[in-house]
Amino acid sequence: MNAIDTYIKTHEDRFLNELLDLLRIPSVSADPKYKADVARCAEAVKTRMEEAGLEKVEICPTAGHPIVYGEKIVDPARPTVLVYGHYDVQPPDPLDLWHSGPFEPVIKDGMIYARGSADDKGQFYMHIKAVECMVKNNALPCNVKVMIEGEEEVGSDNLGVFVKNNKARLKADVVLISDTAMIANDVPSINTGLRGLSYVEVEVTGPNRDLHSGVYGGAVANPINALCEMIASLHDKDRKVTVPGFYDTVRELSKAERDALAEAPFNLDDYKKDLNVKDVRGEAGYTSEERSSIRPTLDVNGIWGGYIGEGAKTVLPSKAFAKLSMRLVPDQKSEPITKLFKDHFEKIAPPGITVVVRPHHGGEAAVTPIDSPAYLAASKAMEETFGKKPIPTRGGGSIPIVALFEAELGLKTVLFGFGLDSDNIHSPNEKYGVFNYFQGIKTIPRFFKHYSASAK
Amino acid sequence: MNAIDTYIKTHEDRFLNELLDLLRIPSVSADPKYKADVARCAEAVKTRMEEAGLEKVEICPTAGHPIVYGEKIVDPARPTVLVYGHYDVQPPDPLDLWHSGPFEPVIKDGMIYARGSADDKGQFYMHIKAVECMVKNNALPCNVKVMIEGEEEVGSDNLGVFVKNNKARLKADVVLISDTAMIANDVPSINTGLRGLSYVEVEVTGPNRDLHSGVYGGAVANPINALCEMIASLHDKDRKVTVPGFYDTVRELSKAERDALAEAPFNLDDYKKDLNVKDVRGEAGYTSEERSSIRPTLDVNGIWGGYIGEGAKTVLPSKAFAKLSMRLVPDQKSEPITKLFKDHFEKIAPPGITVVVRPHHGGEAAVTPIDSPAYLAASKAMEETFGKKPIPTRGGGSIPIVALFEAELGLKTVLFGFGLDSDNIHSPNEKYGVFNYFQGIKTIPRFFKHYSASAK
Repeated sequence: MNAIDTYIKTHEDRFLNELLDLLRIPSVSADPKYKADVARCAEAVKTRMEEAGLEKVEICPTAGHPIVYGEKIVDPARPTVLVYGHYDVQPPDPLDLWHSGPFEPVIKDGMIYARGSADDKGQFYMHIKAVECMVKNNALPCNVKVMIEGEEEVGSDNLGVFVKNNKARLKADVVLISDTAMIANDVPSINTGLRGLSYVEVEVTGPNRDLHSGVYGGAVANPINALCEMIASLHDKDRKVTVPGFYDTVRELSKAERDALAEAPFNLDDYKKDLNVKDVRGEAGYTSEERSSIRPTLDVNGIWGGYIGEGAKTVLPSKAFAKLSMRLVPDQKSEPITKLFKDHFEKIAPPGITVVVRPHHGGEAAVTPIDSPAYLAASKAMEETFGKKPIPTRGGGSIPIVALFEAELGLKTVLFGFGLDSDNIHSPNEKYGVFNYFQGIKTIPRFFKHYSASAK
Repeated sequence: MNAIDTYIKTHEDRFLNELLDLLRIPSVSADPKYKADVARCAEAVKTRMEEAGLEKVEICPTAGHPIVYGEKIVDPARPTVLVYGHYDVQPPDPLDLWHSGPFEPVIKDGMIYARGSADDKGQFYMHIKAVECMVKNNALPCNVKVMIEGEEEVGSDNLGVFVKNNKARLKADVVLISDTAMIANDVPSINTGLRGLSYVEVEVTGPNRDLHSGVYGGAVANPINALCEMIASLHDKDRKVTVPGFYDTVRELSKAERDALAEAPFNLDDYKKDLNVKDVRGEAGYTSEERSSIRPTLDVNGIWGGYIGEGAKTVLPSKAFAKLSMRLVPDQKSEPITKLFKDHFEKIAPPGITVVVRPHHGGEAAVTPIDSPAYLAASKAMEETFGKKPIPTRGGGSIPIVALFEAELGLKTVLFGFGLDSDNIHSPNEKYGVFNYFQGIKTIPRFFKHYSASAK
């Protein structure tokens, strides 16, 4: 690995500047106004992949944003690693909370501040650079296929279609994804479980037009009040979700499994201090870590209705809206849970209120093995670069595609994430450590070496 | 009255066009970006008042938007009518629901569509034209003082100061205000009671930054969910407001009083059909009319938090906000009720949530007599022009200044409104009938005649 480490050192500035260039492109997939930027980002990814030595690099159009695919086949008899990542990013708002422009990357105190720095440009680009290092030093020990999509933040619907239509092309032995976090820079860990997702938007209608709250207030159902009641009723006093059937398929963990998870270092006081909250809040009977990993949840992600400008307006609005998402655990499936939610939410509308529930997107929960050659190779690679054996953990986020890879391609995934929970992903001032970026570039070739050796 | 009626007929087109010109000025008091338009509107009102024959017309600066004042003293020994109105309007949003521009008045099917057409430009301008009719025909039987303010829609705070500082100048015998609605064009009525108002904005904070709902969801209090719970808890199952002490000072009406109010024609099926709601909803034990007039209420006027753009964003936001208002009845006072709300709302914050309650503005409820010379003069005037004796009703809206006039100037008010509940005030497509506008201009001089005669 000496040659590769030296190569990284030599090209350090360029490796960093290329990432910054990528971060300057506002590839927000959720908002149609960024469509041209998303396309421009795909072009940039393609160019970089070609420069890194990947072959047959192609922008694959989809019904939505395109997928960039490339590969380097050194020997068809050797194992193949399928790298997945996404070049699209979350919307940057609220803009006023950013200390610098979300698409004007700034490096401060060793952190790269920009939307997408950790999620996922900074992390997928480590793989492009790792491939470059291996190719340029004649050290790529097995085949690699790289697929970078542009719709992860909006549910990866079209990637699903692409995977189904390209099973032969995507044939591989394992999937490698860097889109998750470690416990800390001195406590490396590998995520072995992800929650699924069911995301819906609800529209609640009262009267057919906005009314004067003085003339009608008290006599007609107010859709905002009604929406609040309906949302409030979705949790009971133990913070369990009240949607009938919600927990029916939840796989409960054994005491031994819970004990194993509890071994990961966690300090509740530090956690509260970091978030500046007096107390945590969640489902009774579970720890904070369990609540955000092995338990399903329901959160409102956005709400709006009535007058939200400056000053006061005494309106009784016609409509109110909310975006809600449920995080799912094995074996809750996204579609049936969405259906349960829809049926329930429509049923609990108070008198004078009508409700429409629109499913946005979903994804399935996934658990990855910790005894596979790929996991062991990843663990060994991290141990070499971090000096410590990584701890297996369970994550709370969703990467819907992980379950799809298993279902469609029969492949298990290694979640080889180098971010931190404090990276502010999906938030203002998203950041990614320069240390983490280069640590990933160093560690990935070591994974290829160990994995290739073990799979011989 | 023949000369005046003929004068109105002769100048009909001009009377209408002058109003349309006034409606073209976007005098939105709540939003600072309209400040210059509000000032321009005050200038226009001043010019029109001078043209109508009023004297000593002046734009009186305040700490906020200016007040326009003018008067015509025919004989200091005669009684004096103080006309009050407001040239400011509600914000026009949601703009996409307007069929034509809110500040581009359009006349369609006999209705003038524009923000402020009914509330209150179309109504206060009837008085300016009525004064013109009386002055130009030498038929003004008593003194008139006209005060048109620019902050009614934001709480009239500075008018309060102005009234306190100008008691001698504003000396009068009765206040006349056209800023309310009648039951129907063929069922004239006079509003004899108004609800008070307490308007607050609440800010609910959970974690110190926006978080990824996958990583933290379920483990940390979500401020939107919390805000919904807190708002939901403000009503019990009988739709009574749960703020402790809220009803302590409410003056309950006698059965006889309630029976008298019930005489006003009201058809629940038509009401529901007009609003396109399957059911009405309100405090148990009261009719729809009572709920929106003699009972206090609590409505959310606006709510926002998290991601409200297109598409999906899995954010667990740091903050959520709402604007809430309480309509108050005699003898609930705005300040103590605001205090009760603030104390209660801060107390019910769930673990991990902090709350700030910011009072916006308030106003006191008011009940006007129905046996005074002024009320009887108004009733007689309407009977002449509508051919039917008007029914005394109780309204649900608030004109905070009515209680102030009583407290500071010792004056009772006649609420001489010519609008309709269906005028969409505070809503998209606000409208005012051409019929109602001219009916007001015809009726007001008759009020002056009868009131002047009775007060001799």
